[in-house]
Parts: sequence; C-alpha cells; structure tokens
Amino acid sequence: MIAKVKGMNDLVYPESEKLNKVIEKIRFLFKLYNAREIVTPLLEHSEVFHREKENSDMVIKETYDFMDRGNRKLTIRPEGTAGVARAYLENKLYLDDDIVKLFYFGTFYRYERPQKGRLREFRQFGIEVFNSDSYLIDLEVIELVSRIYNSFGLKTRIRLNSLGNETSILNYKSKIKEYFNLYKESLCPDCLNRLENNPLRILDCKVDCHKDFFKNAPSTLKYLDLDSKKRFEELLKLLDKLEIPYLVDDKLVRGLDYYSETVFEIDILSDNNDAIKTLGGGGRYNNLTKELGGENTSCFGFAGGIERLINALDETNYDYKLSDSPKFYIITFDKEFEDYGLSILKEIRDKNIAAEFSYKDRSIKSKVKKGITLNSKYLIIIGKNEFDNQTLILKDTVTSTQEELSYSSFKEFLENMEK
Amino acid sequence: MIAKVKGMNDLVYPESEKLNKVIEKIRFLFKLYNAREIVTPLLEHSEVFHREKENSDMVIKETYDFMDRGNRKLTIRPEGTAGVARAYLENKLYLDDDIVKLFYFGTFYRYERPQKGRLREFRQFGIEVFNSDSYLIDLEVIELVSRIYNSFGLKTRIRLNSLGNETSILNYKSKIKEYFNLYKESLCPDCLNRLENNPLRILDCKVDCHKDFFKNAPSTLKYLDLDSKKRFEELLKLLDKLEIPYLVDDKLVRGLDYYSETVFEIDILSDNNDAIKTLGGGGRYNNLTKELGGENTSCFGFAGGIERLINALDETNYDYKLSDSPKFYIITFDKEFEDYGLSILKEIRDKNIAAEFSYKDRSIKSKVKKGITLNSKYLIIIGKNEFDNQTLILKDTVTSTQEELSYSSFKEFLENMEK
Repeated sequence: MIAKVKGMNDLVYPESEKLNKVIEKIRFLFKLYNAREIVTPLLEHSEVFHREKENSDMVIKETYDFMDRGNRKLTIRPEGTAGVARAYLENKLYLDDDIVKLFYFGTFYRYERPQKGRLREFRQFGIEVFNSDSYLIDLEVIELVSRIYNSFGLKTRIRLNSLGNETSILNYKSKIKEYFNLYKESLCPDCLNRLENNPLRILDCKVDCHKDFFKNAPSTLKYLDLDSKKRFEELLKLLDKLEIPYLVDDKLVRGLDYYSETVFEIDILSDNNDAIKTLGGGGRYNNLTKELGGENTSCFGFAGGIERLINALDETNYDYKLSDSPKFYIITFDKEFEDYGLSILKEIRDKNIAAEFSYKDRSIKSKVKKGITLNSKYLIIIGKNEFDNQTLILKDTVTSTQEELSYSSFKEFLENMEK
Repeated sequence: MIAKVKGMNDLVYPESEKLNKVIEKIRFLFKLYNAREIVTPLLEHSEVFHREKENSDMVIKETYDFMDRGNRKLTIRPEGTAGVARAYLENKLYLDDDIVKLFYFGTFYRYERPQKGRLREFRQFGIEVFNSDSYLIDLEVIELVSRIYNSFGLKTRIRLNSLGNETSILNYKSKIKEYFNLYKESLCPDCLNRLENNPLRILDCKVDCHKDFFKNAPSTLKYLDLDSKKRFEELLKLLDKLEIPYLVDDKLVRGLDYYSETVFEIDILSDNNDAIKTLGGGGRYNNLTKELGGENTSCFGFAGGIERLINALDETNYDYKLSDSPKFYIITFDKEFEDYGLSILKEIRDKNIAAEFSYKDRSIKSKVKKGITLNSKYLIIIGKNEFDNQTLILKDTVTSTQEELSYSSFKEFLENMEK
C-alpha cells in the first residue's frame, strides 16, 4: 500500500476539528487587535528564503527546493515571515504610511529528523507588524501573544532580551566569539562550526547550553547603546504596568540573522513556574524587506507552532468544544419507505440540524445499535405502520422514551428545537 | 524586487476573509450531513497521483514533481481525492464497516497556463463517501452539493449522467472511438491524440464540443445494462421527489479514468436557465483504493473550486458579512499619557471588543482623521486634562457627539456594550 510521506501526518477527526477550533479562536483574537489576515502561496522563488545573509540550518539544510516545469527555482515555504514580507512589498501594503498588522495561518515544510511535535509538515500562526520601530509595537505584539495563550487557559511567561542596534550586535558578536574561543575544546561539533560562521547561534545550542562555561557567557545587555537600553527599559516598564509576566534572558538571540532590538519567546510554566516548553517566538527585524529588494521597513513579528499548542492543550485536557453527534438518526425498515425517510432527513437538515440516515442494508437491530453508537439524541423509526399513516416513531436515546408523532407534529417539534 | 511565483496569488483583506467566510459556511453544512473533516499532507509519494491507469493531462503534464533531500519522488497534490483515499486506507478508517464521509478544504497545484479563475495554486473543497455503492449515497452527495451552492443564494442545476459499470464503459469506449474516427479530419490535435489513448476524453474537449458532429455522438445511456439503468432511474426519481433541479447530459464523462455509474457537475444558471459556468463535479469511482494498494472500495465524491465560487459570489454582490472595523480608536496627545491609553486599550480588548491605538507619531488632527478613516464607531481622546483627572473623552463618530467620562463610568459603558 502506498504510505504517506515520512514526517507528514493525516489529521483525522477529532484532530482536524481541534485544529479548526484553535485557529478560529486565534483568528478572533487577532481581529481584536485590528490585524488583517494574509494568505501567501505555498511556493516562492527560492531567493525569498535563500537570501545572501541568511545562513541558518533551516535555510541551508532543510528546505524543499526544486525546479518547476518552466525552470523556475522554487522553495516550499519553511517559515512565514519572508513570504509575508514579500507580499507586503509586492501588494504595496505600505502605501498609506501607517502601521500594517498582518496575521497568517499556514503549513510549513522543513526536511528535519521527524520527532514528537516536530514534523516535516507543520503548522504555524503568526503576525507581522510593519512600518513602525516604536517599542509600543513590541508591547502590542507581546501582549497579544500572551493573551492568545492565556485565552486557552495556559500558564505562560514571556522570555525576552534586547540585542540592540546593528552596532551593538557586531560588538557583541566579536565578544562572544572571543569568549567561546576559550572553551573551544568543550564545544559540540555544530558549535565549532558556528564559532566561525555565526557565533551568536552557539547561544541557541541545545547541547552546549547545559555546560558550565555557558552560564558565564557575556550578556547582550552590556553592549546596548543608550537608546537601545532606554527602549528596552521602557518596554519592561509597560509589561509591568500591564501585568504581563516576563523574564529577561540575556542569552536569548533567536536563530535568524535579521533580528535586532527586542527578541522574545513564550514558555509554558509548570505549577512552580519552571519553563516547560517554548511555544513560539519572535522579535524586531529591520533588514528583511531590503534583502527582498524593497525599501527598508522596521517590523516586529511572532510565530507560534500550532501542533505544539495543541499538544500542550491536550496535556491540560482542554475542552475544544468539538461538535456534537448528529441530533437525529433515521431508520427505515424497508426500501419502500426510503423516500419517506429521506424527506424527513431533508426536513431536519433544512432546519440546520445535523442528521444521519441508516444507509447500510442491515437488520433493524443493527440499525438501532448504530444510531446509539453514533450518540444521536433521537432515533426516528419508520416501519410499515408509520409509512402508511405518514407518522414516525421518535425515540429519545437519553431518556429511553419514545412516541409516535404525525408528520406535522414532528415539524412543530423541529421548529421548537431550533429556538 | 522578488515577485511571487507565476500563477500564484496573495490573498489580502478582504479576499482572505471572504475565503474564511465561505469555508466556514461550507464546513457547517458538511457537518449537518455527519461528514468528518480530514486534512492530508500537501506532499504525497508521486505514485499516489501517477498511477498506472491514470493518463489525464493533469497528471501527465501538470503536476509539480521533485525529489526530496532523501531521494523520495514526491508530488505536490494536484487534486484531493487520491490523497484522501490514501489516508482512508492508511488510517484504516474502514474498520467499522460503515459508510465513511470525509470532507476537506485545501490548496492544490497544477502547472497550467494561468487564466482568470484558473491559477497554478487554487483551492477546492470536497467530500468523499466510502464504503457503499448505494445510489442513495449518490443522492446524499448531490443533494448536499446543491444545498451548499443554494445556501449562498446561487441559482444552480445539477447536470448528470450514468456511465454504467465497467463493461458498459468498455463497450461505450469502442463505440465512441468508432464514431469519432469518422470525423478524424475535423478533430482538434489534442482530440486526435485522445482518439488513440482515451477516446472518452474527446467528450470533455472545449474546442470540439461546439462542432456539429459532436452533438450526434453516441449516448452513454444506450450502453447501460439493466442494473445500471435501473439504478440511474431510481436516482432521478429521488431527485424529482426532493425537488433538486437537474438535467441529464448523456455526453458527460468527466476527466478521470476511475469513474463509473453516476457522474455529475453543477452549473450556475442565468435568469433564463442557461448554464453559465460549472462550479465543480464528481461521481462514483470504484478502483482507486485498489490502485493505491488497498481493498477495493466503492466511493462517491465531489470537488468544487473555491475561487470559482467566490468569483460567482462577487458577481452577485453576495454579502460575506465581513468583520467590522475596530469599535474604538484611542488617541493620546502626548507620550506621557500613553500608558494610561494603553490600559484603556487593554480594558476594551479584555471585553472581546476590537480596538486600535494611535501608535504613529502624528498631529492630533491626523490622529483623529485616521480614526475616522478606520471607520471606528468611537474615538477615545486623552489629553492632559483627562490624564490628570483619569477621565477620557468618548466621541461617537456616527452621531458626532462627545462626552467626558470617568474611567469607572467608561467601564460601565463597556459592560453594557457587551450585552
């Protein structure tokens, strides 16, 4: 049998419905913030992601790249920000010189080693706010992200840091290179590479971060200039004021090259306030639109994993409010009465009430059993008697009572249900 | 500037929201029918689509195929049915030997010449009903499809036909080959090819169908055996009974190889009942699950184009009920009052009411203008006076009235709005 592709999952009910419920709720919250949804294509010209300055593992080792039938080099999107930035420029969404808040939901693709909560096809939601470098926008997004996760009843905390402007980042980079050079022997092979190409990424290492020398690595905050420092302090003050729980993490730098000033992640907390898992992250970036060939624009963005969120919700036994079983299950005793049963079926659905019909050729007993397995509140049973008299038997599976109703009283019954 | 890929579009507001509104409504209707949503990956092993018996243009000329980093031959899905059938088998959704109704929404990819309403990335919704060959299932799906389009206020008609069982189809194929052979000189180049490889497809030709000899081509209905004939008559009788408008089209065969018995399409009608445009189609298929390496299962499916539906709705000025502008727009006169303004902003959003803040550094006049352009019902204005007294000015942009409220009376005002 032909199997699904490794690292990609089918979502069968109830997983498919959980996904929708989660998306619906997040979409509602995005709209509270006057953000507008954007949907960009799954395929982009490879340069959208393979940019000169971008040398993350994600882009170098994990993208799905190919040539199309017209010899275009395309990449299946591995993340959302670059495509949205491309669309922002191409659709001239900056025309009215105002802040533009765009949110998205999508599937993304990375050729990684599949593991729990990390598949080759995965889903993210995200927001990008263009055209303002105010720390109030940092606040707006961080507060929104907090609200999203809290609305699901999760206990979270923002972990944030400031990288400062481009000069501070350069200074810090050389400092961190110097520092880790002292511990060369203790670095993992990946970090040895990073030491040359992008020393900041050592700070993201899931292996070396547990080693002793790591804890004493220099702090980004020491290299901020006055403006960046003040900016960060103002942001923290407002987080206090709005009572958003946060923790400053002066080793947080995030994976991509384009970040500057504020970067942040959001963690789920255990009962005693330990960070258990990171749900998503983001920060400020300034050069991306330029790298894509547009004007330089200041942006602040966030992306969160949807599978990761659903896993976390499953662990807290979150009530997704999944849809009910069909309210009615219609059983006819004989082929002859089918069209009478089908009229009733249509009548019910016309009232926007879910109903199912006993399509399979089975004994009456099996049909009744099926209706009960299906968890329908009502069975409608049509035998010869009912067909001849144009009535029906309405059986309430919860109270185990039943009555014979004329077609017109059943219609009345339906009318009353609706309200 | 890097552009989007040819034939693929960004959906910017309000297009993105129209998409959601349409999907939401269709999803609701699918659930009325006890169908369950399934989400399958975008990428499949190529054999899922490139099956031995499948020789449609779509599969041969239009798929996006490539090798992944692990040398798997993958195809970006060009249609929904094969992936859903693969998932049905792989997830053993047939285990309880009952009818299984699966619906989906998704993007699909075909390397075609882009034209209005036909892009390289496009969206479809669809349903596949597995595990019953009853004509009642044909009816169930056709009635559902009718309901979906009618629920949007579109005037539609089902166009349907029966191909009969595999023997009837073989007989008909040889007949149609014979017939079109007589008109070889008049056939378009594509149809000349089809004459050899798959003569049935000539009937789908958008060029030759306008030619005279086409109208007299043999009817599929003449080649049905007694069972198929009776089956089709029963179906038509029930369509009459349920008052679903239809038209029998004995030249309708549909593009793919796996169809048998009932096939159908749904057309939009003009005021004088001419078919203007086809919105989608489907039919019964029996061999697909076998071709994918599973047990043979009888299925009935439908897929409809979402862009095509939205285009049709746009033409009828359909009211999508797009979401409102933010109810409140908050204007502060000075940086000093920002945090007071931000507390109010949070207060409003805490009540699940959409609000926006005047983030951009502008004159008061421009800020007010922006609030009005944004079409906010209320402006909240905070100057020095209001800040000092912890009050605010609430301006109703519709009635052009304004009043000063204490913070606590504003909170009361919000409480009352909620209800």
